[in-house]
Amino acid sequence: MRAAVYEGPGNIRVEQVPDPEIMLDTDALVAVSHAAISGNDLWSYRGYGQRTPGSRIGREFLGVVQDVGADVRTPRRGDVVIAPSAFSDGTCEYCLAGLHTSCVDGGFWAEPGHDGGQGEAVRVPNADGTLVVVPRSLAGSWARLLPLADVLPAGHHAAVSAGVGYRKTVAVVGDGAVGLSAVLASRRLGADRVVLLGHHPERAELGQAFGVTEAVYGHGEAAIEQFMSVSGGADCVLECVGAQSALDTAIKIAKDGATIGYVGTPHLVEGLDLGSLFGRNIGLAGGASPARAYLPTLLADVISGRLDASPLFDLSVALRDVADGYVAMDTRKALKVGIGV
Amino acid sequence: MRAAVYEGPGNIRVEQVPDPEIMLDTDALVAVSHAAISGNDLWSYRGYGQRTPGSRIGREFLGVVQDVGADVRTPRRGDVVIAPSAFSDGTCEYCLAGLHTSCVDGGFWAEPGHDGGQGEAVRVPNADGTLVVVPRSLAGSWARLLPLADVLPAGHHAAVSAGVGYRKTVAVVGDGAVGLSAVLASRRLGADRVVLLGHHPERAELGQAFGVTEAVYGHGEAAIEQFMSVSGGADCVLECVGAQSALDTAIKIAKDGATIGYVGTPHLVEGLDLGSLFGRNIGLAGGASPARAYLPTLLADVISGRLDASPLFDLSVALRDVADGYVAMDTRKALKVGIGV
Repeated sequence: MRAAVYEGPGNIRVEQVPDPEIMLDTDALVAVSHAAISGNDLWSYRGYGQRTPGSRIGREFLGVVQDVGADVRTPRRGDVVIAPSAFSDGTCEYCLAGLHTSCVDGGFWAEPGHDGGQGEAVRVPNADGTLVVVPRSLAGSWARLLPLADVLPAGHHAAVSAGVGYRKTVAVVGDGAVGLSAVLASRRLGADRVVLLGHHPERAELGQAFGVTEAVYGHGEAAIEQFMSVSGGADCVLECVGAQSALDTAIKIAKDGATIGYVGTPHLVEGLDLGSLFGRNIGLAGGASPARAYLPTLLADVISGRLDASPLFDLSVALRDVADGYVAMDTRKALKVGIGV
Repeated sequence: MRAAVYEGPGNIRVEQVPDPEIMLDTDALVAVSHAAISGNDLWSYRGYGQRTPGSRIGREFLGVVQDVGADVRTPRRGDVVIAPSAFSDGTCEYCLAGLHTSCVDGGFWAEPGHDGGQGEAVRVPNADGTLVVVPRSLAGSWARLLPLADVLPAGHHAAVSAGVGYRKTVAVVGDGAVGLSAVLASRRLGADRVVLLGHHPERAELGQAFGVTEAVYGHGEAAIEQFMSVSGGADCVLECVGAQSALDTAIKIAKDGATIGYVGTPHLVEGLDLGSLFGRNIGLAGGASPARAYLPTLLADVISGRLDASPLFDLSVALRDVADGYVAMDTRKALKVGIGV
């Protein structure tokens, strides 16, 4: 079968790879219909992280169950399923606590020994714990479903971790796909005001459609000052970038006693100055988003039509052209790229 | 009047200072009956922090109201009162949210322009918001009351911030007065197991009396390994030291998804490695303890006899001998020093 393979920084190629097979009785085989390029994939593409050349890539996919192992109870052959960015058994102490990313028997797609989502098929370990069956009627609406694999739960995780709720003033740092998802999630949770700090004024219209009440564009102290004059400080700060500058900004715009919900994978982060948090009782919560924990709840709202993150996808490519998708994401020509397999 | 004055590292002297006076209608004058030496005072004594020679010192005191300004409604002349480590107006947005340390009109004792607690009298700003009247019948039990000024609320703040509750396994890092108070607070909040990580085996008996179920003494990886083999990881970690090593330990002994409640004022802390928190969803909450927020609730338990932190005081000195008290704290000969004024 064909799959995207990481061959080094800036080099993603579609290659022939071995067909996946059921290896354990708890596995399922999923024929991928649609995949997406995630921020994590992009970091790899840019040469950060530990991905070795020749390895599979892709964390977000949607597809149809081709086959299941003898012990799989829930997904059946022919079911349309969505996979969260991490697989997990659904039964361990951490899964039961809603922290599927810490599953004792889990992992992430495209890690050594596991298929990536950007390919024709994926072996899904712990299929019962991992896959979520979606209504067949939605199977055509891939762009509404695919955000559930990662970005929408990640934005939601930031919001939940920061304590977003009714009437809160929320700051979202970052106007990438996760940041914009955090806007949707914050409004869904009842936030009164959602102030977006970003670098992409061209995404303002989309932000507004998602529920941004005020937007601040720019860098450093000037942006912070503008934010403070607009809002007077944030009750909840959602850090959706993972860079030192975003973190520094998050701390400065937080009201005393606020919690920063952070879901941006830390890259190029030197460290956190605890002194800047202590006196003001600023908390820090979040981390790698346990997408599987939130997927059913968010799916229900997608099914009902209340939640629609599909406008995040502003470019769609065929699997054979996946490299073009990476270029478009890398050059910021595309916000989020879908892949038709 | 006489008061302790900081004259530089290692040099605390009792000197004649001007008598305090009512300056604002919201002030009260309190004749101090008992004071204590806090960890914060000790950091100053050791030369850390920004205290300038010639400045007052002391954050914890108990006394009798001598006089009140025209606008003071609650404390009356002759009332026995306890002062939390920070003064606050009790009416601003932050005070109403329980974050009195961020009061827009507040501050800490012995900061420039304000009296320290280790002296014969103190001008108390915002007396209505700051002072808590205690039953006259308890006036003689200074050692039961004085922990309410700072260490007991600080331990409680760590516990609340870390989400301590029924059946939780709690790790307390640090067996100083705040750490031991955190033990008391954790048991009071329903923790099943409280594992103490400390450096003072001579305090083991006191720890056990306060509710420690297991104690681990030592440094670095050996202590961490021992902790993990004893407990399997902590649901809640209470960081009650404020040093880099304590923080590093706190992160390592936390279960994935746990929150570290930190109340040790950061000293000699280089920074926090976000990468060590992110993948495991470790949160960080707490900071400077808003003692005033917790004081009434904890006082009620002190009055009823359910909560007694008086054994923390293992040395009591007269004000004229306050320097001996600092030496005893500095050399770890005393855990906590009370001062009879």
